[in-house]
Amino acid sequence: MVKKVLKFGGTSVGSTERIQHVANIIKKEVSSGSKIIAVVSAMAGNTNELIKLSNEISEEFNKRELDVLLSSGEQVTCALLSGALIKMNIKAKSWLNWQIPILTEGEHTNARIINMHVEKIKNYLDEDGVAIIPGFQGISKNGDITTIGRGGSDATAVAVAKIFSADSCEIYTDVDGVFSTDPNKIPVAKKIDKISFDEMLELSSLGAKVMQSSAVQTAMMYDIPLEVKSTFTERKGTKIFNQDNIDYSKSVTGVAYSKDDAKITITGVEDKPGVAANTFEPLNKAQINVDMVIQNISSDQKTTDITFTVKRDDVSKTIKILKENAKINYKEIIYNDKVAKLSIVGAGMVSTPGVTYRMFRALSDENINILAISTSEIKLSVIIEENNILKAIKKLHTIFDLD
Amino acid sequence: MVKKVLKFGGTSVGSTERIQHVANIIKKEVSSGSKIIAVVSAMAGNTNELIKLSNEISEEFNKRELDVLLSSGEQVTCALLSGALIKMNIKAKSWLNWQIPILTEGEHTNARIINMHVEKIKNYLDEDGVAIIPGFQGISKNGDITTIGRGGSDATAVAVAKIFSADSCEIYTDVDGVFSTDPNKIPVAKKIDKISFDEMLELSSLGAKVMQSSAVQTAMMYDIPLEVKSTFTERKGTKIFNQDNIDYSKSVTGVAYSKDDAKITITGVEDKPGVAANTFEPLNKAQINVDMVIQNISSDQKTTDITFTVKRDDVSKTIKILKENAKINYKEIIYNDKVAKLSIVGAGMVSTPGVTYRMFRALSDENINILAISTSEIKLSVIIEENNILKAIKKLHTIFDLD
Repeated sequence: MVKKVLKFGGTSVGSTERIQHVANIIKKEVSSGSKIIAVVSAMAGNTNELIKLSNEISEEFNKRELDVLLSSGEQVTCALLSGALIKMNIKAKSWLNWQIPILTEGEHTNARIINMHVEKIKNYLDEDGVAIIPGFQGISKNGDITTIGRGGSDATAVAVAKIFSADSCEIYTDVDGVFSTDPNKIPVAKKIDKISFDEMLELSSLGAKVMQSSAVQTAMMYDIPLEVKSTFTERKGTKIFNQDNIDYSKSVTGVAYSKDDAKITITGVEDKPGVAANTFEPLNKAQINVDMVIQNISSDQKTTDITFTVKRDDVSKTIKILKENAKINYKEIIYNDKVAKLSIVGAGMVSTPGVTYRMFRALSDENINILAISTSEIKLSVIIEENNILKAIKKLHTIFDLD
Repeated sequence: MVKKVLKFGGTSVGSTERIQHVANIIKKEVSSGSKIIAVVSAMAGNTNELIKLSNEISEEFNKRELDVLLSSGEQVTCALLSGALIKMNIKAKSWLNWQIPILTEGEHTNARIINMHVEKIKNYLDEDGVAIIPGFQGISKNGDITTIGRGGSDATAVAVAKIFSADSCEIYTDVDGVFSTDPNKIPVAKKIDKISFDEMLELSSLGAKVMQSSAVQTAMMYDIPLEVKSTFTERKGTKIFNQDNIDYSKSVTGVAYSKDDAKITITGVEDKPGVAANTFEPLNKAQINVDMVIQNISSDQKTTDITFTVKRDDVSKTIKILKENAKINYKEIIYNDKVAKLSIVGAGMVSTPGVTYRMFRALSDENINILAISTSEIKLSVIIEENNILKAIKKLHTIFDLD
């Protein structure tokens, strides 16, 4: 008998009407003989509302209590979905983080799942019950509620699939699957039927936003095939496999972008060992995520300029930290928070010569200036002015045969 | 060192601003050296909103899941209040029903607290921590979440006071205390400084609405003195003691009323043993609460009329049940859902002659017809037409020297 983990995101359970629709999806699966564990997010908007309340009290709200607060959202959805199934004469039951329990380690608001007790839920599945589990949370060794970071319901689903040896893990969301680029921006964007974990990782960390990266990483590590599909249509979704199982006819699978980036340059830094380390150490301590880093030699050959990108929201904090932790000498700090990151992703890139050249040529043809470049085996990213992003995506989507 | 249980109702924690105000009240208590356990309700409106969601799915929403759903409300308040205290540098921690745990027995949505583990919280109080506990909920022997009926946070507070041997139990609410009658209706209504448990029970079950009756009963049983006071003013509240400790100068302490009553009469019922039992048995099974019951002999002396009152919401259900469970013969069922119940309450009544007569005379003077009468040692209730209620309250309030 097939055992499936179905995960439903916030918009999929955003109203009681939608929850009843989700119950229908589960009913169909049960009728076709599958054993179902459903992992649910909080109703869309709920988590933000709770965060707003906590911010009204303190912007540095105690993290243990923040976890207690936020975990209530998925509890609500679990109860409502379970009640909706029971109303449809499907045997169902909500299992809260402490009732299973879902064991986590790591700090509050950023814990990770290390284990789950399977016995009780296994028995319940054997009695043909549908188990409804809250995503995004667990308990610590001390019995405190923990959350596993925002969007962590995907990670819960993958962990459940692994620990219960599920046959598949289906991520129900509000889009049809993973697209070759943003379908809201580029009408010719196409849904990708199959994609490798590696490509998916590059795409989701670059703004494809369909799934959380850490969940994809876990699925890759344990070789758990995923399927991302829409709650609201019956169309086929995107299957995410190991690379070996995918046949590549195209060098580039998708074009991704993120436009909440900012570029910071520190000029006139001494050109000697340890400078980069001294620059980034305080940023690391402050948990500011530095993305691309480029170091150029400046004209006088004694000093250098360091350029890097951070999320736009972090710009003022980053500059403040750099100024207050002046273990380095520099001339000035300049920034541009009107930049965007554009990437082409494809597991076939490494075996196809000329992809890099074709990308640079295409951007040049459109008179788009490249501000920074970074590459990996399956990805090529450039930083460009934000107002060029749409033109650039369109051009690359066309020249790499994705339309 | 004084150990206090402070309970804060839904309006007292109805916004983050109010929660911060509550945190200030607790801070003051801590500064004056008290050890504090705070019991909190869900934010005002939250429970109703959750019930609305469950009704959208099913009006007979599964009760186990309803408990999971509703208990989330107090979890939110616990976290927010605890976070607010920590922000003010007060050591504080939320303790959820399963973390303590609070053990209950009885059916879902209507369980009762039978015990709590005290060890961990006692230690925490000894380390000068403030423990924040959710009202209205617990867990069953099976580890399922249970709730103890609406308004049950009062019952939690009293149970906590008992189990932790607290020196006092203070019920913070949105009124200044218990009044001689409804201050919204009768401007001369006066706050009562001291009242006995018995009187309070009669008053709260009759619509004084300041505290849940079952909580007052428990406090009476274990002799736990209560104080009802306002979260929003610094005025003294109403102290609720055992009767022995109160000196009565007045025969009547207060005038209470409830206006959501309905009177049902079954006419032409055979006048023989078992008729009353056969009438009320199916109502009891359906958990319909029958209040006053009067039986009159009818003109032909072979049949009788049975009159009783129920909550107005239960009228149609009651009539349906009576018609479908016709173990009794009757002529017709008539009802009046425009009636109100008016009561005078006072532990001094029993020792003061003429109270009954004075009440009847006063109503007669106002030309108010009495539809039914019921008496107990400290209470005298009458059913009157609803539109007479205000006039009647005013009159009684005056003649019993309560203005």
